[in-house]
Amino acid sequence: MKQRISIVENILSANDQMANNNQNIFNEAGIFAINIMASPGAGKTTFIIKTLESLQGRLRIGVIEGDLATSIDAEIVAAAGLPAVQINTGGNCHLDAVMVSNALPALPLEKLDLILVENVGNLVCPASFKLGTHMNILIASIPEGDDKPYKYPGMYRGVEALIISKIDLLPYVPFNMDYFRRGVEILNPNITTFPVSAKTGEGMDAWADWLVEKIKGNS
Amino acid sequence: MKQRISIVENILSANDQMANNNQNIFNEAGIFAINIMASPGAGKTTFIIKTLESLQGRLRIGVIEGDLATSIDAEIVAAAGLPAVQINTGGNCHLDAVMVSNALPALPLEKLDLILVENVGNLVCPASFKLGTHMNILIASIPEGDDKPYKYPGMYRGVEALIISKIDLLPYVPFNMDYFRRGVEILNPNITTFPVSAKTGEGMDAWADWLVEKIKGNS
Repeated sequence: MKQRISIVENILSANDQMANNNQNIFNEAGIFAINIMASPGAGKTTFIIKTLESLQGRLRIGVIEGDLATSIDAEIVAAAGLPAVQINTGGNCHLDAVMVSNALPALPLEKLDLILVENVGNLVCPASFKLGTHMNILIASIPEGDDKPYKYPGMYRGVEALIISKIDLLPYVPFNMDYFRRGVEILNPNITTFPVSAKTGEGMDAWADWLVEKIKGNS
Repeated sequence: MKQRISIVENILSANDQMANNNQNIFNEAGIFAINIMASPGAGKTTFIIKTLESLQGRLRIGVIEGDLATSIDAEIVAAAGLPAVQINTGGNCHLDAVMVSNALPALPLEKLDLILVENVGNLVCPASFKLGTHMNILIASIPEGDDKPYKYPGMYRGVEALIISKIDLLPYVPFNMDYFRRGVEILNPNITTFPVSAKTGEGMDAWADWLVEKIKGNS
């Protein structure tokens, strides 16, 4: 048993070292990087494209897409005019720092201010692996239900901002916003939340303005 | 590297042995058991309660609920009148056969015909761990989007039935049913699908009737 634990510890520590390397690369290039996590289908790719639209002319964005298989998301993002690279994890339930490191040479780092890393759709595994990004954010979609903070506490604890997506669906699904927010607050009292709808565009400017401020303050 | 692989193989093989034990216990008690997998928030718990309603008087059902934390789901199911036991995985992204084995003594096996095991909400990890159930099913909800079979092929390959849930949301979200079904068919041509809405009750009787036939044929 002891041996298994130490192997896991070594893997995590090797990942942390590589994450530090990635962050050094980002910093040298003057890039702010964000790790975007969510359930499958919470709207990560659409949110990335809407973020691009809201940031038009303010920040130059590149995207790293993580999925088990296919390059569907990288193609969607590239079609929107963004430099994009797809990582296929080959069955793995999360990105890790080595995968991100291997993807970086495919992006024109010297021409970017912001890299959005779309992690594998999963509310468990991605929380345990640092990628070297400067900020972790979580997208929680309304149709997933209001109990998710209570059921996936590790994910809600480890992020700096929470995007509440698909708020246009609120009239059609049972979702108690107070109950949801109470769960979030217990786990992460300092989190910043942005209710958004990619369909109507609601909330996207508030998120984009906050992000620009954040990055200026960071540089 | 070789050592790490062999450790993983041993873990899986130990799990398989325990899964066989679980299936023997189910068989001796005359119980048919189903492993229900899905993304977080696809509607697993609601589907279980609606299945209970559709099977009223035909099969006696018990439920094993799997979550990282909380007993929210077991409480909901128990409130609906079902014998229920909650497994908390303590951060683990899937149930395994040992967890299920440990949960079985909490259920009145001699009084049950069917056990529904609700796995952790995750489209990756649960696919790799047998529990000893007789059938794996997947719930895919409409708001998750039509690209999920392409992105999570392992999950779609390993199930016998597919429940397409929340079809009442079809008017409000982009979802190309043909594209979705083509993806499913490539991976799993013999799968049986049931489009359902827990809100309107649509499709639940077809699922319940199919299940009763299936279990009768199996016994």
